[in-house]
Amino acid sequence: MTVTLGELAVRFGCELHGDPAVTVDSVAALSQAGPRSITFLANSKYVAQLAGTRAGAVILDAKSAADSPVPVLVVTNPHATYARIATLLHPDPPLRPGVHPAATVAGDAVVDPTAEIAAQAYIGDGAHIGARCFIGPGSVIERGAQIGDDSRFLARAFVGHHVVFGKRCIVQPGAVIGGDGFGYASEKGTWVKVPQIGSVRVGDDVEIGANTTIDRGALEDTVIEEGVKLDNLIMIAHNVRIGAHSALAACVAIAGSCVLGKRCVLGGKAGLSGHLTLCDDVVVLGTSFISHSISKPGVYSSALPSEEAGTWRRIVGRIKRLDSMARRMRAVEKHVGFSAVDRDSSED
Amino acid sequence: MTVTLGELAVRFGCELHGDPAVTVDSVAALSQAGPRSITFLANSKYVAQLAGTRAGAVILDAKSAADSPVPVLVVTNPHATYARIATLLHPDPPLRPGVHPAATVAGDAVVDPTAEIAAQAYIGDGAHIGARCFIGPGSVIERGAQIGDDSRFLARAFVGHHVVFGKRCIVQPGAVIGGDGFGYASEKGTWVKVPQIGSVRVGDDVEIGANTTIDRGALEDTVIEEGVKLDNLIMIAHNVRIGAHSALAACVAIAGSCVLGKRCVLGGKAGLSGHLTLCDDVVVLGTSFISHSISKPGVYSSALPSEEAGTWRRIVGRIKRLDSMARRMRAVEKHVGFSAVDRDSSED
Amino acid sequence: MTVTLGELAVRFGCELHGDPAVTVDSVAALSQAGPRSITFLANSKYVAQLAGTRAGAVILDAKSAADSPVPVLVVTNPHATYARIATLLHPDPPLRPGVHPAATVAGDAVVDPTAEIAAQAYIGDGAHIGARCFIGPGSVIERGAQIGDDSRFLARAFVGHHVVFGKRCIVQPGAVIGGDGFGYASEKGTWVKVPQIGSVRVGDDVEIGANTTIDRGALEDTVIEEGVKLDNLIMIAHNVRIGAHSALAACVAIAGSCVLGKRCVLGGKAGLSGHLTLCDDVVVLGTSFISHSISKPGVYSSALPSEEAGTWRRIVGRIKRLDSMARRMRAVEKHVGFSAVDRDSSED
Repeated sequence: MTVTLGELAVRFGCELHGDPAVTVDSVAALSQAGPRSITFLANSKYVAQLAGTRAGAVILDAKSAADSPVPVLVVTNPHATYARIATLLHPDPPLRPGVHPAATVAGDAVVDPTAEIAAQAYIGDGAHIGARCFIGPGSVIERGAQIGDDSRFLARAFVGHHVVFGKRCIVQPGAVIGGDGFGYASEKGTWVKVPQIGSVRVGDDVEIGANTTIDRGALEDTVIEEGVKLDNLIMIAHNVRIGAHSALAACVAIAGSCVLGKRCVLGGKAGLSGHLTLCDDVVVLGTSFISHSISKPGVYSSALPSEEAGTWRRIVGRIKRLDSMARRMRAVEKHVGFSAVDRDSSED
Repeated sequence: MTVTLGELAVRFGCELHGDPAVTVDSVAALSQAGPRSITFLANSKYVAQLAGTRAGAVILDAKSAADSPVPVLVVTNPHATYARIATLLHPDPPLRPGVHPAATVAGDAVVDPTAEIAAQAYIGDGAHIGARCFIGPGSVIERGAQIGDDSRFLARAFVGHHVVFGKRCIVQPGAVIGGDGFGYASEKGTWVKVPQIGSVRVGDDVEIGANTTIDRGALEDTVIEEGVKLDNLIMIAHNVRIGAHSALAACVAIAGSCVLGKRCVLGGKAGLSGHLTLCDDVVVLGTSFISHSISKPGVYSSALPSEEAGTWRRIVGRIKRLDSMARRMRAVEKHVGFSAVDRDSSED
Repeated sequence: MTVTLGELAVRFGCELHGDPAVTVDSVAALSQAGPRSITFLANSKYVAQLAGTRAGAVILDAKSAADSPVPVLVVTNPHATYARIATLLHPDPPLRPGVHPAATVAGDAVVDPTAEIAAQAYIGDGAHIGARCFIGPGSVIERGAQIGDDSRFLARAFVGHHVVFGKRCIVQPGAVIGGDGFGYASEKGTWVKVPQIGSVRVGDDVEIGANTTIDRGALEDTVIEEGVKLDNLIMIAHNVRIGAHSALAACVAIAGSCVLGKRCVLGGKAGLSGHLTLCDDVVVLGTSFISHSISKPGVYSSALPSEEAGTWRRIVGRIKRLDSMARRMRAVEKHVGFSAVDRDSSED
């Protein structure tokens, strides 16, 4: 769609430096943008790249505005305003309300007439699909599940029986919400399945990535609070609670019954042992392993960066002999009759 | 469903302390259970929580039975008995035998008349679906695959051609059993695909988690023995064999041709290099990496718990300089004319 | 199918030692092969196993040819020739050109008449399916996507709108190519979704594993160059470029905007931080974490092999106190008035 800079400034509360009649119809990267595109600069340290832009306009904070050779929309958070303008200029295709003839909807399911149920989708008994929802091709919404208004399941998602979704959620292809949790009783060297009779409750404005899995609770529900963003291939085990507005990068795994606070951020491949509590505002760096609860906001890590393989092999050898090295240290200290003041007396 | 404590005691071999006419219709957590619910206490160290329960009955071992203010079913393994009672009280919905009109079944597939083939499912040429099976919506069972009696594919599972499943298996949504193994011949900097002409054989009573993938063998079959439980997002590569009654937590990855013994337990995100053998009863802690075969039952780990990021960065710096530190240690020992008796002579 | 050794020698450029009229109809492992099977020996160090083979023929390099008791096809790369002969003897079932009545194809999609669209597949508006393609059951090809000739989507794959695939690609079940990238602007403790308006471009001869996810670009495209092989459960984030003929083992995760050179090989569970560049011919060992760009071909690792858990716990304790140990070392050196020449002066 085409829009004038004047309209954008009014709609998104920006101060406009430049001609309000200039029109744009797309967003683009700073280096690629032509005269019909609007772009942005999230970080003022890249301000030097502004000089050569051929964009129709740039979204900037006040500090950088004077440096632009083209019209500027000035805002305090250029990235967020860029996101909103990009959403306006590149909308999803309009819904085609109704049930596609190749979809299957159980007789007593309730589908809002403004929702679109795509081909090959399946809606089970007693499920409830809210207004303006999109249930994409191949998606399965089981019996009794409830999907809040304006939620979109792109394709081939699975929503288990009696799972409840809030409004404006987005679920990428292949995500599985509400499969059984992994629960067994041990008995004479074999496993007896423990029925997983809890459900999953997902708040408003949650996004769930491709092929991510969220298990239903054993007795109580697994809970994803509002505004949570989950990347691809994440595992959320039964009875976990993810606090509002937390963001988990790809391949994170959260073991059963963990409780994460609000606004936690977990880097890719991070993992949590079961039954842990993380307070609000915890950041875990990528690939790190959390084995204890965290009660203090901050950044945590156990990431181990790679070395050239020969060097690394030598380091691993040293790691494996650390106990021996510590004993040698103690022996030398004893031999020379000296030990440093900061020595941890619990060490040996 | 509703059942009396007397009936439960007879059916599950419990000793009943209390009125056999009391009825229950659900299971619940100890703290949540009301008078129509039955609950359990797996661990006698939580026995203090019993005092306040309002449950209709509690499943306990003999040691804790006297402490209950409500009727007790006494058994040696309360968790396993709880699992069975929960299964009785919260059954799966009854099957609707037959092929849904929106399913596709190839003409020469054999579907037992007691099985249910749900909407949008696909059954290929010559496949065989056993008695009382449930092939859920969107599932794909390829040509020549065989599914044993009473097995359930919840939804959107994939079973490759000629894969064989035992009885009473449960497959969570999105699982892929029998995709091609990852096999290529290297040739002048490119890869030539090696056809994967083996299959996958899955024993009785196996459960496979959501979005888990099990590759077919290159020549011989990949094998999952009876009673194995696989959590979500697990990778089992070609020609692996998983021993009976092993349990693998989420995100475990087993590289090609590994052989695991019986009753192995792997924690979440554990990984195995290719061509390893693990004996029976090996336990691998979460996130650990196994690079060598293991011939002794026991617990193995390389998990590295996180620290505050600044502290961790400092530790990583020390790790990277361990070689230098070891040389300094040797030099100091030499300088003072002393080296500890337990020094490993192979170190420097 | 059945073929003579003479035909195989001509077709695949081998030197035949033995009777050209001998026929074979299958491939098999060296130890399993009977007189109707052909087998191979990739590595001359296993040549002793040749003596007992009952195979109809063996594919060998010149060095090992004299040791075979049965006919030999001599070639420089037995593994690659084996792969090609196995493909010939064990072909995919022939395509059934046309659109299955239970598939859904949008009116303006273009499907080559030689392609097969299987049951429960979905082809969106304006999509283009090339000659001799196989779009397996339950696959979703969204609007505007283009699939090159001879590409095969086994089942339940997802290809997002406007994604472009080259020729002869193979996509295993459950793979998701072209879901949204994970992009949000932070605003007052919440997240604003950044539309992902780039696409994914996949070159010729690419194979993508089961349940692997490749996100579409934020603005520019995510690119998988020709000949790349991706195993199962891999995560490729938005705007990544994977260089030609690279091979990534299962559960690898590549964060956003990484650029990998040609012929890179990443072991299972390896992970890359965002915005890194790897030059051509980088090898990363399994489970390793790459946090910096690599400009020198070679092998890199941070893999940490497991120990018996008690031993490992003691080592972890030592690792956590490495800083203290380094200070004690410095103090002892000072006390004895000596410090080794190779001491890194930046250490304390």
